[in-house]
Order: sequence, then C-alpha cells, then structure tokens
Amino acid sequence: MELQLALDLVNIEEAKVLVKEVESFIDIVEIGTPIVINEGLHAVKAIKEAFPNLKVLADLKIMDAGGYEVMKASEAGADIITVLGVSDDSTIRGAVEEARKQGNKIMVDMINVKNIETRAAEIDALGVDYICVHSGYDHQAEGKNSFEELAAIKRVVKQAKTAIAGGIKIDTLQEVISAKPDLVIVGGGITGAENKSATASQMQQWIKQA
Amino acid sequence: MELQLALDLVNIEEAKVLVKEVESFIDIVEIGTPIVINEGLHAVKAIKEAFPNLKVLADLKIMDAGGYEVMKASEAGADIITVLGVSDDSTIRGAVEEARKQGNKIMVDMINVKNIETRAAEIDALGVDYICVHSGYDHQAEGKNSFEELAAIKRVVKQAKTAIAGGIKIDTLQEVISAKPDLVIVGGGITGAENKSATASQMQQWIKQA
Repeated sequence: MELQLALDLVNIEEAKVLVKEVESFIDIVEIGTPIVINEGLHAVKAIKEAFPNLKVLADLKIMDAGGYEVMKASEAGADIITVLGVSDDSTIRGAVEEARKQGNKIMVDMINVKNIETRAAEIDALGVDYICVHSGYDHQAEGKNSFEELAAIKRVVKQAKTAIAGGIKIDTLQEVISAKPDLVIVGGGITGAENKSATASQMQQWIKQA
Repeated sequence: MELQLALDLVNIEEAKVLVKEVESFIDIVEIGTPIVINEGLHAVKAIKEAFPNLKVLADLKIMDAGGYEVMKASEAGADIITVLGVSDDSTIRGAVEEARKQGNKIMVDMINVKNIETRAAEIDALGVDYICVHSGYDHQAEGKNSFEELAAIKRVVKQAKTAIAGGIKIDTLQEVISAKPDLVIVGGGITGAENKSATASQMQQWIKQA
C-alpha cells in the first residue's frame, strides 16, 4: 500500500515547502487540478525538478485528446496522469497508448461515474494502471464517501491497482486501510494538520504495516 | 448567432498573433483545455489583457469544485467558463452561483454525455448560460458529429443558449448554421486555413446573416 499527498490550494512555492516537510513519508505527490488550472504543467515540472526521487502525479482529469495531454504531461515530468472515468473509451485508450510509449502510468478517476462496478470492469480491460474512487470536493460537501465504491471496484478489477481519495484524515485512515486499496490519497488530512510531518509519518507507518 | 474562435495547440504568444489576425470577425476567443493545461489561467489573463474588447472563454471543463474554479477563472478575466455536463449537479450549481456573483457566464460542455436530451433539460433547469454539444477530438477521429445532438438539446432547452463545437470548417458551416445554434465554435477551421482573416470574415458574414 502506498501514500499519495494531494496538493490543491497552493502555488508552486508553497507546494515545495509542503512537500519538503513530508517528503520522506510519501510515495507520490499529486499536483491537483486547481494547481494545474492556475499554473499549468509548469507546476508539475517545478515539483519533479525539486523532488526527483518522488513520483509526481498530474491530476489533469483528462476528458478529451487523451494521447496529446499525456504526451504534454510526460514532457513536464509526470509519472502518473489522471483521466476521467466518464470520458469516452477512445480517450482512455489514447492515454494508455501514449503512457506505454512514455513509460509512465494512467490513473482513472471515477468521480461521478454511475454504475461504477460495470464501468470499472470496462476501464480495467482498457489496461489502465490505477482506478481511483473519489469523493470530490462538491460531493464531500454533501456528506458522500467512497468506501462502498472501493468495495464495488475491488469486486471486478483484475489488473489495475485501486486507489481512494476524498476527505481522508488521520482519524478515518484505519477504516480506509481496512478496505485494502493499493494507494491512499490524502490532501487536507496532511496539509491541514497542525504537525504535518508527524501526521504523514504516522500515516506512512500504518500504511506500511497494512 | 455568434462566432467563437477556439485556440488549442498554441502557446500564449502564438495565440496573440492568431487572435490579432481575426479579432474583428469573432465575438469570443476560447482558451482551449490544452492551453489551460500547459499554461494555466495565465493564458486567459494574457489574452484578456491583450484583447479587452473580446469576450474570453476559459475551457476549464470543470468536473469538481465548481465554485472555486469559477472564482479563479474570474480573477484571470474570463467572461465564460466551461463545466462538464457529466459532472454532478452540485458542481454545476456551485459554478452558476459563483458566476452570478462574478457577473460572468457558465457554458456546459456535453462531451460524452449519454441520454443527452434528458441531461440537457436537467442542466438547463440549473440556470446555466450556454449548453454546448461537442464532438471531442477523440470522437472526431471516430467520425462522429454533433448535428443530431444539437437538434436533441434544442427540443428541450428553454432558457440557455445553445452552442456547437467540433471539427466545423468553412465547407460545413452552412449546414451548422441551418441547425440554428446561438453560438458556433470553430478551431482548426480558422487556425488551419490558408487565409485566416478571409475565412473568419466569410464565416462571420454568413453567421450574421443567419
């Protein structure tokens, strides 16, 4: 099981300070969609250059032009790139093909996918590397969580790794771990903690033990 | 009927040169998703500053955090911001509420929406300003077009304006115009033309006559 730090509401310099503080406790650092929208792939490039030993995920939430966007993210140094589960199969297929060429990985974000079990099976068959259940920011505000969705995709996914994201904090992490995802994605649960490094360290310890 | 120029595969400086060439023939300039991913909202800001008299559309294809993303795009000077039709109603609602505060507009991109007529009626009721049928890049490669989808949404949409995008060229424009959208979005049909200003001028003339 791995730990991913999701960065959302910071600029590039603030991101560097945050990652520096927890870098030895995380496996992947995510440049979240709000940062991509604000700064573009420049943010991915800057973080990969500053932390070459960490994997960097570019949360592009690709909806179209899968091959092209994966190529651009690869140029910027992204190790993992996200595509939306609600996108067309041709978009996911194009992203996977380009990632194979570039030697990086595709994560599909299942945010707002209906019939999640059926769609996860289809997406798994397209050869993606990760399938991520995700209670988005707007969903969290409505009190939704992703445990049932994780269980649903784990019933059908045969080759992809599974990931879970959305509102995970230190006091809900044990419940998340017991649902056995391959990757746990934490944002505010680390960046909003009083002691970020102690929180990330504790999270890492639990995750490595699982 | 209005004409929107969609810019996709250019950097900020190339975008300025292109817009300069056709600015008197277009109503809206779109900073396409690939530019947003590469350059972030800096591209929206640069084009709005260079062409204050044009409306600028930021093609964010928002999937989550509707209110926040619309606020950031507004700060950058966007007049119209796109949200995905496959996103949750709460995301579209958040985007519309923020746009009302900021005095700008929301376009919903119907790319890869299933049951387009039902969904268009739901989205129209959420108070968005434009609903856009869109044959994406990956769809166009499969030979799909959006005429049937435009007819479908026009049957149900009561308050929003309708728009059509995806692969429109000078030789298909008359067919598009006869389908009576409120807004026609053209990318490569202008940027890939031998004489860009003559093409845009001809398109504008036909659109204004319609």
